[in-house]
Amino acid sequence: MLPAPAMYHFPLPEYRHISGEKLAIRIRISSGHELTSVLLRTEPDNEEALTPMVLELDDGRWQWWSASVSISTHDIQFMYSFKILSHTQQFWLDAAGVTKRAPLRHRQFRWLTSNVPPDWIPHQVFYQVFPDRFCNGDSALNVKDNERLYHGTQPVKAMNWGDPILDQGDHLAFYGGDLPGIQQSLDYIRELGATALYLNPVFDSPSTHRYDTQDYLNVDPHLGGNSALQKLCHDVHQRGMKIVLDAVFNHTSENHPWFNRWSESDIEGAYQNTAGVNAQRYFFFDIANPDSYHCWKGAHTLPTLDWSNEHVQDYFCNPSEGAIQYWLSEPYHIDGWRLDVIHMLGDGEGARNNAARMQQIRHAVKEAQPNAMVLGEHFFEATRWLQGDQEDAAMNYYGFATPVRAFFASQDIAYQPCQIDAEDFDEWLTDARTQISFEHQLCQFNLLDSHDTARFFTLVNEQFDVMKQAVMMLMTYPGVPSIYYGDEVGMSGQNDPYCRACFDWTELSWNTELLDWYKTCIALRQNTPVLQTGAYATLHAKGDVFIFIRFDAQHATVIAINRGASSTQRQVTLSQWDCTPNRKEKVIGEAQWQDNTIELPAYGCAVWHLIR
Amino acid sequence: MLPAPAMYHFPLPEYRHISGEKLAIRIRISSGHELTSVLLRTEPDNEEALTPMVLELDDGRWQWWSASVSISTHDIQFMYSFKILSHTQQFWLDAAGVTKRAPLRHRQFRWLTSNVPPDWIPHQVFYQVFPDRFCNGDSALNVKDNERLYHGTQPVKAMNWGDPILDQGDHLAFYGGDLPGIQQSLDYIRELGATALYLNPVFDSPSTHRYDTQDYLNVDPHLGGNSALQKLCHDVHQRGMKIVLDAVFNHTSENHPWFNRWSESDIEGAYQNTAGVNAQRYFFFDIANPDSYHCWKGAHTLPTLDWSNEHVQDYFCNPSEGAIQYWLSEPYHIDGWRLDVIHMLGDGEGARNNAARMQQIRHAVKEAQPNAMVLGEHFFEATRWLQGDQEDAAMNYYGFATPVRAFFASQDIAYQPCQIDAEDFDEWLTDARTQISFEHQLCQFNLLDSHDTARFFTLVNEQFDVMKQAVMMLMTYPGVPSIYYGDEVGMSGQNDPYCRACFDWTELSWNTELLDWYKTCIALRQNTPVLQTGAYATLHAKGDVFIFIRFDAQHATVIAINRGASSTQRQVTLSQWDCTPNRKEKVIGEAQWQDNTIELPAYGCAVWHLIR
Repeated sequence: MLPAPAMYHFPLPEYRHISGEKLAIRIRISSGHELTSVLLRTEPDNEEALTPMVLELDDGRWQWWSASVSISTHDIQFMYSFKILSHTQQFWLDAAGVTKRAPLRHRQFRWLTSNVPPDWIPHQVFYQVFPDRFCNGDSALNVKDNERLYHGTQPVKAMNWGDPILDQGDHLAFYGGDLPGIQQSLDYIRELGATALYLNPVFDSPSTHRYDTQDYLNVDPHLGGNSALQKLCHDVHQRGMKIVLDAVFNHTSENHPWFNRWSESDIEGAYQNTAGVNAQRYFFFDIANPDSYHCWKGAHTLPTLDWSNEHVQDYFCNPSEGAIQYWLSEPYHIDGWRLDVIHMLGDGEGARNNAARMQQIRHAVKEAQPNAMVLGEHFFEATRWLQGDQEDAAMNYYGFATPVRAFFASQDIAYQPCQIDAEDFDEWLTDARTQISFEHQLCQFNLLDSHDTARFFTLVNEQFDVMKQAVMMLMTYPGVPSIYYGDEVGMSGQNDPYCRACFDWTELSWNTELLDWYKTCIALRQNTPVLQTGAYATLHAKGDVFIFIRFDAQHATVIAINRGASSTQRQVTLSQWDCTPNRKEKVIGEAQWQDNTIELPAYGCAVWHLIR
Repeated sequence: MLPAPAMYHFPLPEYRHISGEKLAIRIRISSGHELTSVLLRTEPDNEEALTPMVLELDDGRWQWWSASVSISTHDIQFMYSFKILSHTQQFWLDAAGVTKRAPLRHRQFRWLTSNVPPDWIPHQVFYQVFPDRFCNGDSALNVKDNERLYHGTQPVKAMNWGDPILDQGDHLAFYGGDLPGIQQSLDYIRELGATALYLNPVFDSPSTHRYDTQDYLNVDPHLGGNSALQKLCHDVHQRGMKIVLDAVFNHTSENHPWFNRWSESDIEGAYQNTAGVNAQRYFFFDIANPDSYHCWKGAHTLPTLDWSNEHVQDYFCNPSEGAIQYWLSEPYHIDGWRLDVIHMLGDGEGARNNAARMQQIRHAVKEAQPNAMVLGEHFFEATRWLQGDQEDAAMNYYGFATPVRAFFASQDIAYQPCQIDAEDFDEWLTDARTQISFEHQLCQFNLLDSHDTARFFTLVNEQFDVMKQAVMMLMTYPGVPSIYYGDEVGMSGQNDPYCRACFDWTELSWNTELLDWYKTCIALRQNTPVLQTGAYATLHAKGDVFIFIRFDAQHATVIAINRGASSTQRQVTLSQWDCTPNRKEKVIGEAQWQDNTIELPAYGCAVWHLIR
């Protein structure tokens, strides 16, 4: 068998663009192979069609083949791949690479015929804030010691800013962070380079994490209430920034009037009357027993909503008065919703009908504001939610945070040992990337850590050289980066609750070397459009060394990383890429690039702009 | 990094079974590795859960680990995989093999919580008959020359049995095959070893292929009408055999009274009145133009049904009087439907809402007869239709016919060159198999060819030695084999229409060597339960040699194939399998098996039963 020719197709206008009512598609193939035909495979009406492509150009090194096809509209995603024929053989090019046989559906290239995610997303750098722990802007709002009981029995605690995190009962420990504090910190956030906020829940809730909402239409008074959110949104938007809020629609607080376990209101909640109207919003395994309600992962403070109930659907999704549209509208006009544990939401006690409910939620968001972001929380593979009909993006644990953690920290998301080398890393990233459209790839919410994980700096034992490389990945890999508050100044902390410590505003406490590195990498991203929306290709993935390129027709940026801790330099030769720039401009790092050879020191990482 | 231990999990009771209300799951891992824990990964409510498994047994060679889990019911398929931890590393076992990271959803093991395909299917050997060309049982039924016009202009032709296939107009050429003929041939079919019939369309239609139905409730009078089908079904069932009919629900004939293009009835069809009730069953691009109807692949004789129309849905799917249930009920009681071009069926002009319509059709079938087979026609990947909510099985072009054609005949399903070796062959088969449940794998409708392809014997240039191997694959690989009428006696023929020649009942014309081989392989399958329902594993796949095993706790059968044409024998050493039978009984073939080494002659294939 003969080897396959080199073949390339990228999500760039020179390779695909709408022309009239058709999609014009090109593929680039190395010259000199005796090809009998090049075919574009599509699936109009779910049936395979092979459209002959025309040889447009052959410059002796590369051939460009092209075809134009009508886009079938029965699917949100128009799928395609390429079949290349010689007299004796066939090869295919799909989103995951070159094969000898018709690719499975999940490997096809995708073109979105509709439901394209908002185009502002890839240009952002997000900053995630856990409201109680970021900044106390108005101490008059503070929760007072013992001012109320949580779960009917546990008194809340007022803490001093910076007090050590409690080993037990962090959910009762209020440090006083609030929305005015966030508002006062916008200069800090903007100076760092971030352009968008993602806030953990802000709605009225009995706990410090506020994932148990007791009122979806009122911001917690201890955070400043609705007026504080209105002011924050105003200031955010005035700076050209964006704000995304946390939506906890899978369950409510046990204190929500619908449930009312501790009889905090006069309403006849589900707990008072399991045969009543409100009880239909929840799921009771035994209608005779008010304690038999289904709750999130067994936490009795979090009764699960039954989304088969029309009142529930209407409360959130009603186009003119639902909670979803309420905050998307003036005077708040938030820019998106981050949907908590969204894969678990559904009818009855479990996730039944999840896709239909998610489509309903998406619809409510887009009806209220077509440009709003629908961001789903998924600790694991989110492919199903990213096929165009549901989410614009997922919190990218599966396709970014976890492989990055494995590659640099030899752990997985469950803190279990996970050793991978650059080949595995590349395969993992490729697998996750190629099952969703390019537009979705660019919107994926990339992160190193969050309020639900140990701090990445802690995971790498506070080794600056390793942290540097991970931050570089975060700011250069496809997807929108998110920084968890305080990561940039070297905050440490094991998993929840220790990752939720107070931000220390004493500048002397900051790791300024790391802060400078964050600013450098963020600025690089913000000043380099191909890092926001450019195509991606891996150039080298072996052992400790991972090198990739982000590019469009005019610009290209190469990122090289050597995670290797040995004192020996790594020298790698690039072979598979047609990358012969007239000039390379190294913008970051200590590496050398001579001809096709890149030399990286231990823990080295470097970035070059290529000039054509 | 340390190598992964050997790890096995198969769809057999010793590895998984229902115990009380839980699913008990086991994995077998080679002893001597320092494992810290073995975890069962499941997705209750779509969320990952890791259940620690318990070491049940360690005999020094193998460890057995087990866990029992509740089966979440939010999905038809319960997905799981295994996470194996040492002090420094993790490995995963999923349906496609061993990896170093959490498997993507499509690679998970699957357990069907409901919608299990009928268990009679894997025990069958199907025989596919194209009614006009198999046997003329009653010449009084024959179509007469010029007795009517097709498409308003083309006179039908009465042919003599065995006349050469016309290069043009085969759809008008009636040879006189009929249902009484099939009935009279049941002894022949049964003696061959087949146990089930799949008939190409039999309903009233103007063409010889009858894919343009003009009456879904009446069998074509030229085939013998409803009474002939009733008699045939009676005889089939009396012999303990099964019968599956062809359902063409994506489009009708242009002669169907609903459409009535040639005004053959007094009914006001869609063509007469594009604003009328009947026109709502079809799709007109321009309501003012009766010729602007959407039709199947541009064939104007086949106007496409618009399945968004409730009358269409009701006509086919009504539980008490719909066409689907009509034939599933007495006195016919057919055993299943083969759904023609089912992936193209949908709302409007295309395949929109295909999944919902397919679910509706499935529901109608199962309501009428829970044990009936829902078989879909898909020339390409059918994964989406085989996830439990739609089909029991697909015509397995993608996962069997095409790779077999590529491996043995170096062509793909489009007759384009396709060279693969045994590694590629194994990967292809594995990819197709592991994305569907084991129960679906066992029901996949495997075939070498059909009325829509060249005869396989022709594709391999009538080389008996190659044909032998393909027939062996067909009868031993997971899935239910189907023989296209006449393949067994060496009928040849290029693609449609040449693959639809008359069966020659002159025994002297038969390739009896091939017929004997078919009978041998069919008998082997029928006498070897593990070939019907046993688990599958590849033992060796390299170059020309492909060796696999079908097994359960008690029995095992090994199939070895060397497609190599060179005169040199192939000698391969089995390594990865724990296959130390006390005795091997070779039942077919010329090969040698000594210790771990199998020697196969050129074009060799062999089968052994292993006795433990």
